[in-house]
Amino acid sequence: MAEIGVGMLGYAFMGKAHSNAFKKIVYMTWPPPLEPRLVGIAGRDEAAVGEAATRYGYEYATSDWRKLVEDDSIGLFDNGGPNSLHAEPTIAAAQAGKHVICEKPLGRDADESYAIWQAVAATGVKHLCAFNYRFVPAIRLAREMIDAGELGEIRHFRGRYLQDWADDPSLDTWRFAPDDAGSGALGDIGTHVIDLARFLNGEIATVSGFAKTFVEGRKVDDAIEAAVEFENGSVGTIEGTRLALGRRNAFQWEINGSKGSLAFDMERLNELQVFRDDGDRARGFKTVLVSETDHPFWEHWWPPGHIIGWGDTFVHELHHMLEAIASDTDIAPYGATFEDGYRAGEVADAIVRSGQTGRRETVSYRSS
Amino acid sequence: MAEIGVGMLGYAFMGKAHSNAFKKIVYMTWPPPLEPRLVGIAGRDEAAVGEAATRYGYEYATSDWRKLVEDDSIGLFDNGGPNSLHAEPTIAAAQAGKHVICEKPLGRDADESYAIWQAVAATGVKHLCAFNYRFVPAIRLAREMIDAGELGEIRHFRGRYLQDWADDPSLDTWRFAPDDAGSGALGDIGTHVIDLARFLNGEIATVSGFAKTFVEGRKVDDAIEAAVEFENGSVGTIEGTRLALGRRNAFQWEINGSKGSLAFDMERLNELQVFRDDGDRARGFKTVLVSETDHPFWEHWWPPGHIIGWGDTFVHELHHMLEAIASDTDIAPYGATFEDGYRAGEVADAIVRSGQTGRRETVSYRSS
Amino acid sequence: MAEIGVGMLGYAFMGKAHSNAFKKIVYMTWPPPLEPRLVGIAGRDEAAVGEAATRYGYEYATSDWRKLVEDDSIGLFDNGGPNSLHAEPTIAAAQAGKHVICEKPLGRDADESYAIWQAVAATGVKHLCAFNYRFVPAIRLAREMIDAGELGEIRHFRGRYLQDWADDPSLDTWRFAPDDAGSGALGDIGTHVIDLARFLNGEIATVSGFAKTFVEGRKVDDAIEAAVEFENGSVGTIEGTRLALGRRNAFQWEINGSKGSLAFDMERLNELQVFRDDGDRARGFKTVLVSETDHPFWEHWWPPGHIIGWGDTFVHELHHMLEAIASDTDIAPYGATFEDGYRAGEVADAIVRSGQTGRRETVSYRSS
Amino acid sequence: MAEIGVGMLGYAFMGKAHSNAFKKIVYMTWPPPLEPRLVGIAGRDEAAVGEAATRYGYEYATSDWRKLVEDDSIGLFDNGGPNSLHAEPTIAAAQAGKHVICEKPLGRDADESYAIWQAVAATGVKHLCAFNYRFVPAIRLAREMIDAGELGEIRHFRGRYLQDWADDPSLDTWRFAPDDAGSGALGDIGTHVIDLARFLNGEIATVSGFAKTFVEGRKVDDAIEAAVEFENGSVGTIEGTRLALGRRNAFQWEINGSKGSLAFDMERLNELQVFRDDGDRARGFKTVLVSETDHPFWEHWWPPGHIIGWGDTFVHELHHMLEAIASDTDIAPYGATFEDGYRAGEVADAIVRSGQTGRRETVSYRSS
Repeated sequence: MAEIGVGMLGYAFMGKAHSNAFKKIVYMTWPPPLEPRLVGIAGRDEAAVGEAATRYGYEYATSDWRKLVEDDSIGLFDNGGPNSLHAEPTIAAAQAGKHVICEKPLGRDADESYAIWQAVAATGVKHLCAFNYRFVPAIRLAREMIDAGELGEIRHFRGRYLQDWADDPSLDTWRFAPDDAGSGALGDIGTHVIDLARFLNGEIATVSGFAKTFVEGRKVDDAIEAAVEFENGSVGTIEGTRLALGRRNAFQWEINGSKGSLAFDMERLNELQVFRDDGDRARGFKTVLVSETDHPFWEHWWPPGHIIGWGDTFVHELHHMLEAIASDTDIAPYGATFEDGYRAGEVADAIVRSGQTGRRETVSYRSS
Repeated sequence: MAEIGVGMLGYAFMGKAHSNAFKKIVYMTWPPPLEPRLVGIAGRDEAAVGEAATRYGYEYATSDWRKLVEDDSIGLFDNGGPNSLHAEPTIAAAQAGKHVICEKPLGRDADESYAIWQAVAATGVKHLCAFNYRFVPAIRLAREMIDAGELGEIRHFRGRYLQDWADDPSLDTWRFAPDDAGSGALGDIGTHVIDLARFLNGEIATVSGFAKTFVEGRKVDDAIEAAVEFENGSVGTIEGTRLALGRRNAFQWEINGSKGSLAFDMERLNELQVFRDDGDRARGFKTVLVSETDHPFWEHWWPPGHIIGWGDTFVHELHHMLEAIASDTDIAPYGATFEDGYRAGEVADAIVRSGQTGRRETVSYRSS
Repeated sequence: MAEIGVGMLGYAFMGKAHSNAFKKIVYMTWPPPLEPRLVGIAGRDEAAVGEAATRYGYEYATSDWRKLVEDDSIGLFDNGGPNSLHAEPTIAAAQAGKHVICEKPLGRDADESYAIWQAVAATGVKHLCAFNYRFVPAIRLAREMIDAGELGEIRHFRGRYLQDWADDPSLDTWRFAPDDAGSGALGDIGTHVIDLARFLNGEIATVSGFAKTFVEGRKVDDAIEAAVEFENGSVGTIEGTRLALGRRNAFQWEINGSKGSLAFDMERLNELQVFRDDGDRARGFKTVLVSETDHPFWEHWWPPGHIIGWGDTFVHELHHMLEAIASDTDIAPYGATFEDGYRAGEVADAIVRSGQTGRRETVSYRSS
Repeated sequence: MAEIGVGMLGYAFMGKAHSNAFKKIVYMTWPPPLEPRLVGIAGRDEAAVGEAATRYGYEYATSDWRKLVEDDSIGLFDNGGPNSLHAEPTIAAAQAGKHVICEKPLGRDADESYAIWQAVAATGVKHLCAFNYRFVPAIRLAREMIDAGELGEIRHFRGRYLQDWADDPSLDTWRFAPDDAGSGALGDIGTHVIDLARFLNGEIATVSGFAKTFVEGRKVDDAIEAAVEFENGSVGTIEGTRLALGRRNAFQWEINGSKGSLAFDMERLNELQVFRDDGDRARGFKTVLVSETDHPFWEHWWPPGHIIGWGDTFVHELHHMLEAIASDTDIAPYGATFEDGYRAGEVADAIVRSGQTGRRETVSYRSS
């Protein structure tokens, strides 16, 4: 089986999630498109990255990501580092001819995201912005149903990503440092909502909203709120907060169309709520356990009803990337490219701008 | 037992709901504060209003609401007519010394609502704007918990009222006629969201949003979307639509505070979702069946767990009005006064204005 | 409109529920089949029954139920008294030519139930055993779906009625007195499960189970457990307990057939869970809010989605009785006759017997 | 890091589940107690087992399980073969000094299970019967809460395992062959219910029930139903069926105690429903997302709210086995030993016996 050398930047949350996925792809998606060989892993803390290399089976650890870029045995560079480390290493890796994966948000704002996209696109490598929720089976099923016209004309998309871990002024992480993170809830979870809004319902035309900081002394936003209009004429809301007590990872969205509706909650990521206006006297939303043999990604897993976990979404995502590399197929439309990463950044910036100007802001995208 | 004569304007949906409540108050809320005597009912269709009088036991029917206003045996005038019939009859009844109930929205816009409020307040009668959802036990419980500080400092209110009956261009009702209704989803269900937002979380400071019409040829809005800021510093969204397929009467809201959260869905109106940040290892939202002996309004009903219906919220509401009349107590804060009706109108107007100007609109209230 | 005089025995829980229903029938089910005139109400506590007469509008109160039996203006005798007062008054009323309603359980055991049924049937009056849950819209819809073959061949019925109010040794009510009640959870809630099992799935052939008392000193059972076989070949369980902490009125059942399944919980009595094996890729249980214009009983109520309460099931039940009287139609199959009351008693007795003998007991019914 | 050689019997459903777990343990449970080295895998179909070896990374494949038993580099024999292949290979492996894991049911009936247990226990190796649901975080949390007395005295356990895949007479698998499987739903899913009943609530004293076959020509049972009494005085039901349409993997159970209740559904395996009778006015079941840092097994995974999948329960289970081997600690009480496997068999046999004799059957256990 053909293999591809992987260089990983970051060994913490995303490093763990991606490494696990590369290891599972080998045997859960059988046969895998390419066999990932875990070559090198980079991180700032030498002891920690060394332990990570041992743990996940990378051939070496380094505190200098440039070593990965220069390593010819690496064909795929996976950037799971803090947002401030997205641009330079990712661009360098692409320019060294490596295919690249970069965690979201692509850059710390639209400008940086645009620069990354442009620089990487110019190299011709495959690029994937790791909006992993596109690879939740229920969400792919939703996309397929919408594409097939099963919802008719869309009227509403409302999405909110609710977490509650940030309600502590003493918390200290790079996620609260403007230089490292760029923004707070906006970039961290707001961009997930924006990306799925675009994935499921197309481009956002205008936003009317704002970002908000609650915790004293915090330098990034805790929450965003926006009323939005889509290019297809539908309307709705986009929200994100890390201060919704009791909601741990509640990325909830609902879409209403002229023929049906869908609803979803990431805390029950194996389920899709489906309403069809089919004239059945027994009218209501179905709770669909998305785990049937004819459901997306399910050929890799278990008998129906035996649910998968959050970590498994990365298996699907990285499998998609490997398939694209192996067969030279497109990342889009099911995967998010760096252009998608950039576009999410434009919408995010527009929300901030709307908060500052007090105006409804039109989203406009720069061309490639 | 002291009685009070009731004159009812309207015999359809709201006429039925209010008449049923007056009849049940007599024996379900025992002893009732006042015994309502159903004196007269008015409506435009003579045959229909005559049948309604027979059906509900009114002493007479009339096609001229002025007859009710002139009837000295009537001490309480209840206006359940179309929005265009709110102002004149309600003001006339109050000026004739009758206590008045008026369905929401109070007027077709803030100006009309203000005029009604001012004219009626000047008479000194009791006035209640029939935002009946304040009288859902779960919602009163929510209010009591918030008042007691059980949620701490509030960060978010997000409310959406989703229905789906209006997705048919051929539908014809006064609710789609601008002159009769004033607005569409905005006045009909959007004002319910606005009122509960104010009831549970205080005044709204700014709105950024718009109204939207989907159905071709329809002259009123089908949906509203807004991002909002409250005077207490919390933020959130307000939405209303009559085109959310599969949602029949889904008035859903969630409040997040620094100590806990609450969530609700009118399709399960007997339940309140309660999260307390109490350090219990078993952390999560409780599904509280609001039907305990120490829960609001439950002294009138059944053993715990034996749920009540939507229609029963009017029993609580009209009981509150009768109690206020009998004991000369205030409608506020648990009941909505005409001032509340007016204030909901100001917020509604601000959403429309925001849609037109493309600006975040500040809500400002005229004084009494 | 033709009227019928009603005599009520009992003024507490069931007296309130039935009186409320008679009053609402007059205007909620329009036009009513017969107008109930509340003539007399009987109860042991003179002061209490007197107040009940005033409250509900009965023309007189009495502490001697025989007065109701002798009152020629009474055409319908409604027995909501303790179980020990079911037999004699009900039989006497029937023999005096009055139609009779009797609360469940019909008698304190199968023998007594049989005697009541036989004596009353001999008189030719209409008789209804008040298993009100047959008149929950979701349950009637279930029955209609099953009758129409929408579930195919039935394989399973499992029903459990869970309450938690009885977990207090100091509680004192007639429901714990063997002479008054006959049994504990068995007659009180177990018979509801048995009746719906029969209503939805036909006769029970065998039971293997027992009754169980937990609370020290209590003289009636707290719970029943049984594995059952039905005559149609399906199998399942029947359970009832008043010691399931956290369950207030959780009468839950599920039916599985070869074409679909249904599930229900009385704490959400407006909802029916419906699964159809229809080949839809979106496979799952629908949450059907049983409140559509083409749903059972809904012609009496509100627009779709505006739910009804537990108390409203009695409106449907007593309306059914009045309709049967007015039009001389059958109580069966949608209403429970005294024969149904007796048959529930036979199954209940068989569970007790199984507990005593340690054997699977065959249910056999005496003929009429 | 110390390693242990693993020999696997079976390459299909359970072979995949266990192999995946061994591979994930190495890096998800860091540092692992022992590093599993995948030495050999055995199965009847030479081509298939050869591909499985490649896929999962076993050093060799064989169609003769004896080769694994004779391989001195294998220290842990994991039997995921059909039930008829449990006894001989497992005993042989243990007698060769290898620690053993055997899938459930341990044997095809209590006699065979007893023989396996006795033979293996005599060798002194560690033995684990793979009732993996003990290793669901929510179920371990339940056990810990019960052990800590948080539920008080237990009154009820009711468990039912509902699947629907077997409703097709043309299906052909070893699971329908009496010689291969021993029984149908009973051994396959009924024993899971029995094991968790014992795990959470202690020994079962009596069973009153039966097994039932629906599908024509099928030689094993499709369903079991039983009313049960536990040694601690609590009572309840045990059910299992593979014909409950719409239920894919719905292993549901509920426990009611004098201080609280718990409820669970395997289709939402990350959630535990918790009721505490703590006097809070907001009374109800909590939906606990069992994914907090202080929840069982969660040290291995993700931030709170990022749920795990069914397959991950095996990671916990096999980690427990490796820990027991590495530290010479007991499999019990959190893991199921072969004695637990045997005891589940006794209860299962008693249900069959009860069906045959028509009597309540006492469960009695043979001593070790």
